[in-house]
Amino acid sequence: MFETSFITLFPEAFPGPLGVSILERARKEGIWDWDIIQLRDFGIGKHRNVDETPAGGGAGMVLRPDVAAAAIDSLPRQERPLIYLSPRGKPFDQEMARTFAEGPGLILFCGRFEGLDERVIEGRDMIEVSMGDFVLAGGEVAAMALTEAVVRLLPGVAGNEDSLSEESFETGLLEHPQYTLPREWEGRGTPDVLLSGDHKRIAEWRLNSAKALTKQRRPDLYAAYSETHDIQAPETGDEHY
Amino acid sequence: MFETSFITLFPEAFPGPLGVSILERARKEGIWDWDIIQLRDFGIGKHRNVDETPAGGGAGMVLRPDVAAAAIDSLPRQERPLIYLSPRGKPFDQEMARTFAEGPGLILFCGRFEGLDERVIEGRDMIEVSMGDFVLAGGEVAAMALTEAVVRLLPGVAGNEDSLSEESFETGLLEHPQYTLPREWEGRGTPDVLLSGDHKRIAEWRLNSAKALTKQRRPDLYAAYSETHDIQAPETGDEHY
Repeated sequence: MFETSFITLFPEAFPGPLGVSILERARKEGIWDWDIIQLRDFGIGKHRNVDETPAGGGAGMVLRPDVAAAAIDSLPRQERPLIYLSPRGKPFDQEMARTFAEGPGLILFCGRFEGLDERVIEGRDMIEVSMGDFVLAGGEVAAMALTEAVVRLLPGVAGNEDSLSEESFETGLLEHPQYTLPREWEGRGTPDVLLSGDHKRIAEWRLNSAKALTKQRRPDLYAAYSETHDIQAPETGDEHY
Repeated sequence: MFETSFITLFPEAFPGPLGVSILERARKEGIWDWDIIQLRDFGIGKHRNVDETPAGGGAGMVLRPDVAAAAIDSLPRQERPLIYLSPRGKPFDQEMARTFAEGPGLILFCGRFEGLDERVIEGRDMIEVSMGDFVLAGGEVAAMALTEAVVRLLPGVAGNEDSLSEESFETGLLEHPQYTLPREWEGRGTPDVLLSGDHKRIAEWRLNSAKALTKQRRPDLYAAYSETHDIQAPETGDEHY
């Protein structure tokens, strides 16, 4: 059982997207589960204060280290990584998702306000992870996205293991375009090669399309791919890009 | 009123993190609102099919272009950008969040399965946006994260406009470390400068800390910052990094 624990001031945000589709089915099957720690329960005094003004002044409020640590220490750690979702962290990617999926579970600290006192990040060996170069109102939605990306990699969660290996980032390329029924729609057809039944040509077309798309949209990914693959330049005549 | 519409097969995932804290307060105050279009309502035949096997074979199912277009066309467009959350898209960032926040609202198409038929992406001018280089089970959590990042920038949503201007990415740097009460915790103190009352020195310490952190963790951001600022190298003696 892959155990995920969320430390949050907003339990009512959960499960949200974690409670539907393949993630909810996998939870019912006992592959993973989630629980919530309400940070407020560890607050100080009658009003259960969790935050104070920043040392040195400035806008907003900062989460107290003692309160955060009490919430963290209330959990069985079980060698789970303790993740603090923060735009200052290492950008989350598919490689990190695979690493976390091989572990025993996750503890996710969802920040609010101006963030968490630096001392508890250091003192509890928190791993700062970022969802990207943007700012959220709180860590909850980032924690959910991270969890969804990790849990779907657990054995038995995604319906089809083949579809995992073909998709974006598992190959190092963005995924090729997809087509389905109807064959003609609003004057737009389906590429002939996909209807040819020639599996070798279809695979080539898809790989070349994926290369062309990646080269156009994400030169950074394409450069990394090129370094590790024996590259043949994608067909320049591809009419889709 | 900033209107956000989500096209999804999983309405029960909503509002999740969009229904708490400053976003929920702002919704009650009439600053923004959200609604859901159930894609299944536009499905084909008695079983309301929304997906078919990929042209050319392969794993999984692809969302039909006619069904997706019918759902999209059912909405008042109101010059709102139509966003398709996909790992193939342009990586979402704070600059994109600011641009969307200046618009009239958002339409967010949440994909599932192997994705959406390419023709509807083209035919409806969908903007492909990615949350990062990882794969989710569906677009819902990515749509929520994007919406949260945008809505918090609307006037009157975040409590303190000052705190917006100081945070990560608004300055081009990761945010400096924060400290609050207690002044000493588990043998860890608060940097003296923050308790000095000298606002100029505090501001310098914070800027230097932010520069040092960014340089260490995100050389890509630091290089971009250096190009647009008259850089003084951060103090190398900073004990925190």
